[in-house]
Amino acid sequence: MARVKDFVDTQNFTKEELLDMVNVGLLMKENLKKGFPLNVLYHKTLGMIFEQSSTRTRVSFETAMTQLGGHAQYLAPGQIQLGSHESLSDTAQVLSRLVDILMARVQKHESVEQLAQYATIPVINGMSDYNHPTQELGDVTTMFEHMPEGKKFEDLKVVFVGDATQVCASLSMIVTKLGGNFVQFGPEGFQLKDNFRKIAEENCKVSGGSFLVTDNAEEALKDADFIYTDVWYGLYEAELSEEERMKIFYPKYQVNMDMIKMAAPHVKFMHCLPATRNEEVTDEVIDSEYSIVFDEAENRLTAMRALLVFFMDKMEEVTEICNKNLGK
Amino acid sequence: MARVKDFVDTQNFTKEELLDMVNVGLLMKENLKKGFPLNVLYHKTLGMIFEQSSTRTRVSFETAMTQLGGHAQYLAPGQIQLGSHESLSDTAQVLSRLVDILMARVQKHESVEQLAQYATIPVINGMSDYNHPTQELGDVTTMFEHMPEGKKFEDLKVVFVGDATQVCASLSMIVTKLGGNFVQFGPEGFQLKDNFRKIAEENCKVSGGSFLVTDNAEEALKDADFIYTDVWYGLYEAELSEEERMKIFYPKYQVNMDMIKMAAPHVKFMHCLPATRNEEVTDEVIDSEYSIVFDEAENRLTAMRALLVFFMDKMEEVTEICNKNLGK
Amino acid sequence: MARVKDFVDTQNFTKEELLDMVNVGLLMKENLKKGFPLNVLYHKTLGMIFEQSSTRTRVSFETAMTQLGGHAQYLAPGQIQLGSHESLSDTAQVLSRLVDILMARVQKHESVEQLAQYATIPVINGMSDYNHPTQELGDVTTMFEHMPEGKKFEDLKVVFVGDATQVCASLSMIVTKLGGNFVQFGPEGFQLKDNFRKIAEENCKVSGGSFLVTDNAEEALKDADFIYTDVWYGLYEAELSEEERMKIFYPKYQVNMDMIKMAAPHVKFMHCLPATRNEEVTDEVIDSEYSIVFDEAENRLTAMRALLVFFMDKMEEVTEICNKNLGK
Repeated sequence: MARVKDFVDTQNFTKEELLDMVNVGLLMKENLKKGFPLNVLYHKTLGMIFEQSSTRTRVSFETAMTQLGGHAQYLAPGQIQLGSHESLSDTAQVLSRLVDILMARVQKHESVEQLAQYATIPVINGMSDYNHPTQELGDVTTMFEHMPEGKKFEDLKVVFVGDATQVCASLSMIVTKLGGNFVQFGPEGFQLKDNFRKIAEENCKVSGGSFLVTDNAEEALKDADFIYTDVWYGLYEAELSEEERMKIFYPKYQVNMDMIKMAAPHVKFMHCLPATRNEEVTDEVIDSEYSIVFDEAENRLTAMRALLVFFMDKMEEVTEICNKNLGK
Repeated sequence: MARVKDFVDTQNFTKEELLDMVNVGLLMKENLKKGFPLNVLYHKTLGMIFEQSSTRTRVSFETAMTQLGGHAQYLAPGQIQLGSHESLSDTAQVLSRLVDILMARVQKHESVEQLAQYATIPVINGMSDYNHPTQELGDVTTMFEHMPEGKKFEDLKVVFVGDATQVCASLSMIVTKLGGNFVQFGPEGFQLKDNFRKIAEENCKVSGGSFLVTDNAEEALKDADFIYTDVWYGLYEAELSEEERMKIFYPKYQVNMDMIKMAAPHVKFMHCLPATRNEEVTDEVIDSEYSIVFDEAENRLTAMRALLVFFMDKMEEVTEICNKNLGK
Repeated sequence: MARVKDFVDTQNFTKEELLDMVNVGLLMKENLKKGFPLNVLYHKTLGMIFEQSSTRTRVSFETAMTQLGGHAQYLAPGQIQLGSHESLSDTAQVLSRLVDILMARVQKHESVEQLAQYATIPVINGMSDYNHPTQELGDVTTMFEHMPEGKKFEDLKVVFVGDATQVCASLSMIVTKLGGNFVQFGPEGFQLKDNFRKIAEENCKVSGGSFLVTDNAEEALKDADFIYTDVWYGLYEAELSEEERMKIFYPKYQVNMDMIKMAAPHVKFMHCLPATRNEEVTDEVIDSEYSIVFDEAENRLTAMRALLVFFMDKMEEVTEICNKNLGK
């Protein structure tokens, strides 16, 4: 049994547990790429609640369930309303009887916390206004795949450029949890808030990682192994108009070739996508050999398969099957 | 072959056929709980037409198909319009060529009747403005599971409290069909209409059951084995405002602890859900040990698996498989 | 490997390739009708992008994937917007990492062309404002099934009656490609445009087929083997009001019994559906023994199975399996 029933926040897990998820994800990816089927969630159902629509998250989870022999049900925005027509606790308890595992993309973080509290089955947070833990897991998986030669995770400098979105916050948590060195390079007013700084600093005390928020480009980007950015328009709360956001972030925080050149020569560019091309990142960068954004997108799927297996208590079974298939 | 092609109304079936559905449902439930897979609808497709959205019905059917090795297609409200863009008979005939079985939640009962008439494949009524037969089957399944010690169905007193919704009407039909004793405890103007009274009385003549509509609390609730309620706002026709419905039903028809105490000591509380908590039922009751509402919700799934198997002519096959798996 | 990665336009394929698709479709249909399962797309995912909703196309593809052991994801209108939130090339590249094959029903033909260009996986055109190639394949499949005794495809006279919709254009392309004789019987201003006439004429040079556009009923309908029509209201661009379209097409271009009598005695009536009954076709015709519209609808599914197998490179495997099952 998973020690914690739900995947609401990576902070609820140890470094070892998170690395187990990454590793089983990579193992299953290799197994599937070599054409060996997996059937460990045979006839199981994932319920997917989306308060906001999200192609990437939905498609990844649905493909993951198919590849594992099960099925994902897509409950689109408007088809289920958490806490309106019926109490959230009733919805959670009913769905616990009708499906095997739930994921929810919610407007408010407390909705996914309450779903997890009342559901008797595992609940996976598919992004809230607070964090984006499935993205975190996919992102560190991608970093392991693109680890600079001779380095280990603890050596990495991961620089998030731009607005402190929940993807930025999530990245700061997972990188510091795993002992890496995290930097947010962003303007005042759009930097990580105190609650996230505190979490990151606590993580660093345990993991030996480091954490920095700065608007100094040189300090931020020097020797960066990964440069990561996200859109400037904000997904929640105060959405910015194009004019406003350009005034705040452009040109200093646009990831372009000049910025890439300030980082380590082997630097890789990441973006959770969708990107507003030539706003937060130039075509030249996102289409360059530095860019690993599509590998990153693919690893959403890698991570989701891992999460499904972890929380459905199939870690041992799947590891055994894959190792046997792959002759390990 | 099923004697009647479609599940539009439980009145089209004999007591024995309905009990066969209940029993195969319970058998499959036991089989699945013990971890034995079923694959009797391998690669089959259920088309699900929803003119109104319904999470519970949709999720139950979709999970049922996955558990039986098939797949359910969700045609959401607006994605298919019965009788508007094309004639309902054309839709029925086309879908009969593209899927294996259909379910439809419709605005008007005649739509599901016409679908059944024109389709060459089985059609299941997923609720209309007239009745809710899949709910009926799940509800009696739940009563069998929670049968008071020493009693049989014919001994049961089942009391529906409140507005004569289609769930109330459906309950009156199935309980009297199976020989139980049905009471609606509701205010004048919100009591079962003559057409339903006539059906129930005819049922009783055959089955030996009884039927009563009353606004007398004591008469209604004395020795009740099951107290059942539904929302007060009406799903069809004249929707009531909160003020109106409170004036009509509150406090006399609210299921609270005082009402529970008027029934048999072993009484169980049922609700088709979603509930408007502290309107038709208090938190105290729905969260108490008297409440079996989540078992009831789960048995929507139990009933739907049974219906799919019954109308896809897999009764013998599935019975044999389950009995073998369970050593019966 | 398929010589051309995508099914955007039947013009990109040779007559032999198209006939291979038809034949494998008919082979799989026979195999499934006889109860032999197919599992050649085991755990594979088809992503279905719909910019416009379409019950028939969606249901057919989703059933096809289930029957082949895989799963189809329905991305409904509004759930994914090609080229708005993110660049179409990014969407194509991301989806190429998350699913195995894509289909798209698009507003503009260039959208499906671009999807095909940027995706690294096969893309199937599920109808655009230019053509409707999956319909084409299903339609010729239906013609082969209803081939008049003693005739071969090259002998057929196929008459499309009414507005030069993209279904009309598509039919003209596939019939001339395969060496048949195509006629559009329609009024001036609603006849096939020059670009389509040029394609058809080029096709005829290679295939030996013939091509005619006329408003002369007798010339059009004499000896017709198949009469085909489509709605009059137009699906794209300038939609016609009922009054306008009646003035243009009625009564001359309505398919009624008088028109049927002008054709060959064995003539069959086809319609891509949905039909506006008693507008472009009378009840008398569509419900007559001349009508094969539901066989035609079923062959959407036949064709889609064939396309999925062709573009997922399973032609040899599926042929071998079916021949073995059927003792061929």
